[in-house]
Amino acid sequence: MTVSLHPVPGIPEIRRGDDLPALVAAAVAAAGLGPLPGDVIVVTHKVVSKAEGMVVGCLDDAEYRRIVADEAAAVLRRRGDLVIARTRHGYICANAGVDRSNAAQGTAILLPRDPDRSAHGIRTGIHRICGVDCPVVVTDTFGRPWRRGVVDVAIGVSGLEAILDLRGTPDASGRIMEATEVAVVDEIAAAADLVMGKADAIPAAIVRGLALAPGAGRAADLIRPADEDMFR
Amino acid sequence: MTVSLHPVPGIPEIRRGDDLPALVAAAVAAAGLGPLPGDVIVVTHKVVSKAEGMVVGCLDDAEYRRIVADEAAAVLRRRGDLVIARTRHGYICANAGVDRSNAAQGTAILLPRDPDRSAHGIRTGIHRICGVDCPVVVTDTFGRPWRRGVVDVAIGVSGLEAILDLRGTPDASGRIMEATEVAVVDEIAAAADLVMGKADAIPAAIVRGLALAPGAGRAADLIRPADEDMFR
Repeated sequence: MTVSLHPVPGIPEIRRGDDLPALVAAAVAAAGLGPLPGDVIVVTHKVVSKAEGMVVGCLDDAEYRRIVADEAAAVLRRRGDLVIARTRHGYICANAGVDRSNAAQGTAILLPRDPDRSAHGIRTGIHRICGVDCPVVVTDTFGRPWRRGVVDVAIGVSGLEAILDLRGTPDASGRIMEATEVAVVDEIAAAADLVMGKADAIPAAIVRGLALAPGAGRAADLIRPADEDMFR
Repeated sequence: MTVSLHPVPGIPEIRRGDDLPALVAAAVAAAGLGPLPGDVIVVTHKVVSKAEGMVVGCLDDAEYRRIVADEAAAVLRRRGDLVIARTRHGYICANAGVDRSNAAQGTAILLPRDPDRSAHGIRTGIHRICGVDCPVVVTDTFGRPWRRGVVDVAIGVSGLEAILDLRGTPDASGRIMEATEVAVVDEIAAAADLVMGKADAIPAAIVRGLALAPGAGRAADLIRPADEDMFR
């Protein structure tokens, strides 16, 4: 099994109300990438947020801090200008997901209101246009406790299980694996970022060859319930 | 730019003292995968630990707890049988990295003593055998705070920067990005896991087409210094 990661260039600057599924489908087709059955289509949330109008004016740092406070359901830690917050969706990330990079001057980009629903909309739109029903993963770039550097993770999913549950499966030595739930959509998000880059304005990629069963997972499944979480 | 992920099958069960670089190189060649210049070779630490003799007897849960306590430099949290600990290397993970899955009955696998050095040894060994100098990433499977499910991360690196530093690079809108250090080797580790699986006994993969500059990074670079860390 070989998996390939294909950037999808040619998606124009997205504005509120743009038909994102149509623009992604056109770019995928123009790049000669199909899509093919079994492809997973990965889209960074920034274009999703822009299409959904989740962009607000943000002229200075004070305004940015107010927007972050508005978006935060709870603040876990604060140091200088950095706030680690839980969003209304339940994601814990820097600045409640409010981002000024890759945003037009004087604006900030919020997270989509319901990224799983956004993923579902992109999936059904592309299915309608192309006749191929591909799972969709919507990503954001998160920091992590304990480890330096950011990685892309899934914040919206449609058409796949978010977690591959290998509990109860024998490992290679025949021993039943105790607690192996793989966050496969986070691995897909991280893999896709290898071809999207951060500065290149390539907001979508295709992950081909995974042979994953279709599923009805949501990225919200990845949120660890507070009572299981030891680091809040 | 297309990136491809290739599993490397055919690596035998590894025992203490086995020449791991030779076995990986032979499996890569037998799979018709080269290696080619620019390939990144990803190896799960379990085979590294086995080759290095980092395997101990572990007959029951009490013994397992003693081994975990020995391997932990500090315990951050404890709940039931689960211990979140900092290892001597500085990695923070479940059970100080001591693992009974994919271990022979009655044994547990420890982390390599110096995984960056292990990666370097595999890289130089494969270079000597194949004449191609490929970066090597040694991986482990870690849980995360806040997010359910495990993902593979880098614990050893040779021949690459661990972190891609995009700070000071303009983003697609021309705005200077503020704090974008991408943990690219963690994204490589996560991507490779998509073709290695957890139960399939495929302990190596090739990531082809990344076009990353050679570098002298270490996975230890990924460890966030305690004074920058808000979640200890």
